[in-house]
Amino acid sequence: MVQAAVVGASGYVGMELARLLVLHPQARVRFFVSRAEAGKKVAESVPALDGFCDAKFCAPEDADYSECDAVFFATPPGVAMRSAGELLAQGKTVIDLSPDFRLRSADVFAKWYCEHSAPELLPRAVYGLSESARAEIAKADLIACPGCFATAVALALLPFAARGLTDGAIVVDAKSGVSGAGRRSDRADLLFAEQHGNFKAYAISGHRHQPEMEQTLAAAGGNSELIFVPHLLPAARGIYASAYFPLKENAPHPAETLAEHWRGEPFITVRADEAPQLSQVVGGNRARIGAARLGKNGALVIAALDNLIKGAAGQAVQNMNIRFGIPETAGLAAPG
Amino acid sequence: MVQAAVVGASGYVGMELARLLVLHPQARVRFFVSRAEAGKKVAESVPALDGFCDAKFCAPEDADYSECDAVFFATPPGVAMRSAGELLAQGKTVIDLSPDFRLRSADVFAKWYCEHSAPELLPRAVYGLSESARAEIAKADLIACPGCFATAVALALLPFAARGLTDGAIVVDAKSGVSGAGRRSDRADLLFAEQHGNFKAYAISGHRHQPEMEQTLAAAGGNSELIFVPHLLPAARGIYASAYFPLKENAPHPAETLAEHWRGEPFITVRADEAPQLSQVVGGNRARIGAARLGKNGALVIAALDNLIKGAAGQAVQNMNIRFGIPETAGLAAPG
Amino acid sequence: MVQAAVVGASGYVGMELARLLVLHPQARVRFFVSRAEAGKKVAESVPALDGFCDAKFCAPEDADYSECDAVFFATPPGVAMRSAGELLAQGKTVIDLSPDFRLRSADVFAKWYCEHSAPELLPRAVYGLSESARAEIAKADLIACPGCFATAVALALLPFAARGLTDGAIVVDAKSGVSGAGRRSDRADLLFAEQHGNFKAYAISGHRHQPEMEQTLAAAGGNSELIFVPHLLPAARGIYASAYFPLKENAPHPAETLAEHWRGEPFITVRADEAPQLSQVVGGNRARIGAARLGKNGALVIAALDNLIKGAAGQAVQNMNIRFGIPETAGLAAPG
Amino acid sequence: MVQAAVVGASGYVGMELARLLVLHPQARVRFFVSRAEAGKKVAESVPALDGFCDAKFCAPEDADYSECDAVFFATPPGVAMRSAGELLAQGKTVIDLSPDFRLRSADVFAKWYCEHSAPELLPRAVYGLSESARAEIAKADLIACPGCFATAVALALLPFAARGLTDGAIVVDAKSGVSGAGRRSDRADLLFAEQHGNFKAYAISGHRHQPEMEQTLAAAGGNSELIFVPHLLPAARGIYASAYFPLKENAPHPAETLAEHWRGEPFITVRADEAPQLSQVVGGNRARIGAARLGKNGALVIAALDNLIKGAAGQAVQNMNIRFGIPETAGLAAPG
Repeated sequence: MVQAAVVGASGYVGMELARLLVLHPQARVRFFVSRAEAGKKVAESVPALDGFCDAKFCAPEDADYSECDAVFFATPPGVAMRSAGELLAQGKTVIDLSPDFRLRSADVFAKWYCEHSAPELLPRAVYGLSESARAEIAKADLIACPGCFATAVALALLPFAARGLTDGAIVVDAKSGVSGAGRRSDRADLLFAEQHGNFKAYAISGHRHQPEMEQTLAAAGGNSELIFVPHLLPAARGIYASAYFPLKENAPHPAETLAEHWRGEPFITVRADEAPQLSQVVGGNRARIGAARLGKNGALVIAALDNLIKGAAGQAVQNMNIRFGIPETAGLAAPG
Repeated sequence: MVQAAVVGASGYVGMELARLLVLHPQARVRFFVSRAEAGKKVAESVPALDGFCDAKFCAPEDADYSECDAVFFATPPGVAMRSAGELLAQGKTVIDLSPDFRLRSADVFAKWYCEHSAPELLPRAVYGLSESARAEIAKADLIACPGCFATAVALALLPFAARGLTDGAIVVDAKSGVSGAGRRSDRADLLFAEQHGNFKAYAISGHRHQPEMEQTLAAAGGNSELIFVPHLLPAARGIYASAYFPLKENAPHPAETLAEHWRGEPFITVRADEAPQLSQVVGGNRARIGAARLGKNGALVIAALDNLIKGAAGQAVQNMNIRFGIPETAGLAAPG
Repeated sequence: MVQAAVVGASGYVGMELARLLVLHPQARVRFFVSRAEAGKKVAESVPALDGFCDAKFCAPEDADYSECDAVFFATPPGVAMRSAGELLAQGKTVIDLSPDFRLRSADVFAKWYCEHSAPELLPRAVYGLSESARAEIAKADLIACPGCFATAVALALLPFAARGLTDGAIVVDAKSGVSGAGRRSDRADLLFAEQHGNFKAYAISGHRHQPEMEQTLAAAGGNSELIFVPHLLPAARGIYASAYFPLKENAPHPAETLAEHWRGEPFITVRADEAPQLSQVVGGNRARIGAARLGKNGALVIAALDNLIKGAAGQAVQNMNIRFGIPETAGLAAPG
Repeated sequence: MVQAAVVGASGYVGMELARLLVLHPQARVRFFVSRAEAGKKVAESVPALDGFCDAKFCAPEDADYSECDAVFFATPPGVAMRSAGELLAQGKTVIDLSPDFRLRSADVFAKWYCEHSAPELLPRAVYGLSESARAEIAKADLIACPGCFATAVALALLPFAARGLTDGAIVVDAKSGVSGAGRRSDRADLLFAEQHGNFKAYAISGHRHQPEMEQTLAAAGGNSELIFVPHLLPAARGIYASAYFPLKENAPHPAETLAEHWRGEPFITVRADEAPQLSQVVGGNRARIGAARLGKNGALVIAALDNLIKGAAGQAVQNMNIRFGIPETAGLAAPG
């Protein structure tokens, strides 16, 4: 039984994480930390937990991690980095869902977020794309869970980067449900009345998740330029990332490459010549990837997943399972 | 040509009012007042005006109403009451879309909103339900436009109140699109990710629009208890108010009563034994009312309208037309 | 391990039932019967089952129920009645989710649906409102699962009918998500482009589920007139039924009555003076009921549930659990 | 005053066309032809016309075009081609919104649709992209209005094709609201309950509108490969087409090219480094195009428009205006 704490438990990702951990057969949540909702019952915010959880949110200063094995951070940028060092010193495993430890370079981090307060920890962090880093995750004490867009892009493109099969720039036209922007009250464009029936691209001059994607693909050997444009869907949940790129001559059908690379993965389904649908993945930890040849030598690879689960809380739980020797699908089997 | 100013032009109602007035053949908007968006182009916020309007929002202190005939307030409670006295003294017509001048009683107002700073103006205000108060509106200099729920309830029930045809408590189960709650960033429940696929009642212990409805029905002679429960729809726009009440014996079919009362009204369509649909009214200034007999002696009367148009900005323009001797449908003919 | 078959497995209710039964720890589905999709893989239609189920739909004539303990019907009216007799003769338990065996009277059935082909079986059918008929369900071989609206209305009103606490007509303003109308291609009004942003009442001259509600309330001792008007929500799932009625003098707060009546029920949550939200119940087998006093002597009781689960497939599984001596929450614990 | 008839008036495009023409100051609709709805009042199907139009739909055999100047076809493929010849012989102008006359080649048409029954008319048809073919449209008697996707792609890419500025394959990731699939009851995937919260690519192995796009770009001098993948949005209306392509060295900022090409166009708005939103264009005849440089030498050009208006009925009316010497914006000014 993993003793866990969730910091930032009242945001969308934190709520989903709370739900998954409370229902997890081998985990127990000792603290649901949220300054904003301290004192309020967790089940009020996460109705799915009504009847399953009587705990209340507590303020950060009231959480005592001494009995915890793992501390999850589902916090805005800049929070986890300030606590991680002390927790690691106490022998805790830190599973960070924020961007704080995703990038190798403190300089690149600073360019997109803020000055990094714990750059000395960056080399210690394992980038927690579960399917690609099991061995490292199993031994890590600081796990940086990938962003939701970055997870989709990695699942779609890593097999091609690793095999050197791309032959030119990769265009990723990616779409996210509105929950991907967080539970923020400072952006009118996230209001129902503005996004209902709407669709738009955003951050077309550069998105802060792009360096993370480039780092992942480069580490696998990829050297093609990546063009990434995110869009906001009139849907609550889901990532739908469509990658277009030229294939090297003699490359097999892209679905073959994907199927080979992700063979046996319990949370990845690959289909040839069939596009995934968001409705197939929302609510579960599974990603669906469809791939087809397009035009003369082009490939289309589409990855769909639930941004709050496989793209965040689910992958974090998957990493906890790997780290603590629990069966990898424990607590994640619900198909959504 | 009516020279107009819109105060509070960057909220949902203010934006709709800006749109209607800019396109109105006999009105000109001289000032779009919004502290929050001062300096920004109006057409950026109201894309419908792109190409039709080059003006910018201005701060309240930069607006000069000396050349204006009418000043519209699409502001939160408590704003219009602080400016109305001075504007009236300058001979301006004040058309208030906020609740400030809707209630006859400053005490009732204080109970639901805040202390009233200009109670001496309340007797001067004309309650601007266009169809019921044309003669008074035509001579008024302070017009209090009804709330969106109150407009729907009045259109549905006034004919019965006026004829003494209700025989017991009236239940109004009313639903509103999310824009009815305003462009507010302090309420997470208005976020797309929370209201998509959701539905809920709210304010079940009492809604601040109820005194306005009771005042209207009582003024018409109604003496039945009113039970009013609002709900939030997963839709951007629209009011759908279903009223259930026992009919006096020998009362005609309720659609007959409605058709008689609203005969000739350009913006009211009455149907017997046919429920309206929101999609029939969204985008225009028309209300649709359907009525049926239910059970032994019951009536069902359903009024549907666009909360931002007939329930707010459209009715305000209709009142401006009446006040300034312009054809009542001018600028309001677009069917949505 | 209950050996089961699902007839009508490709409609919305059938798909949900297939999902619940495949994931149920003590059930096994031997046949997924669907003429329309015979030969197609079940997991293609029910993506939640991808990886959990390799079976294919089969045509009715290819299903062999000899090894089955329970046969579920998630079929249009008129189908289950033609097979039930033979299945009962073979000692099978028939769990019918269609309306065929809900009404005691073949004449009333004929008025709303079609001639009943097996009226002799009606006395044998147990009306399967799980919480109210456990003892009968445990011994039944023909279980008629309540309709989704009727389930919500029964949960909201049975406690008051049973105690004689209503003092006049009951108004139920009920709303359903679009899946409640079924997976039908003969109704353009169910198309996305027509219902998005829309809302409407329907069947205002009488809904075929009303006799079922009246039968249930009368059986419990209720004698108040019931006025029921259904509406279509722009949401995929959910029933939200708001009941308004006068309370007898000295009646306790309606939430007390509800809490007392449904005490200990694992799938019913009662709240005083707090309205439920669809988002709290969609995806799970739980109903939430909120109740408040309204006006002089009025009660408001709102029941919210997932139409496809607690209002259909979930309740059917709950009944199977009761019937076969399995823990009642088995396979139904997922909170949604 | 143009005397018009609309054939296929009860589909989504036909209904929108009926609305625009009824409200058009210089057009009169003499026949609303719909076999399915013959005898029913038009305003029942098109509630926006309630109060503006008392006409009924008529069956094809009951329409008499002798007094008509223009006959619009908003029909499925294969209908207009069977009537066009006779109408042209009678001196009528045929404005076809179906695909029948869009392609130069009867063979290509046959590959995607059906055998063409009037190939001799193909050379006579003018491809009615209003902004690009004014002179030809003004003299045409057979106008083939572009498809909705093809309109968006042409507006986004024609300026680059015409100037030879593309330097490699063009990827178009295009999204459409559900109404783009028509008012069809034979496709369950268009049901609200299936598309709500969903998103998916379709026709990834080839879309029948692609040859039309290729024909348009080739005619302008374009010689880059076009890769086009359409997606279905959970929205009722709108086309959002994102084009990614490498720019020739020394090419100006893509927004400059667009602004130069579409200078003065009343229905086209170009923005640099700013993505359009569907909510800015839905309900009106305006397209918004945003463009940015991406990566080393890439361009992103996004075109957004209302699929039923600028992508269908609005462009058809624009073509009618051009053809009959009416101001081009007549009846189309409403900003949506």
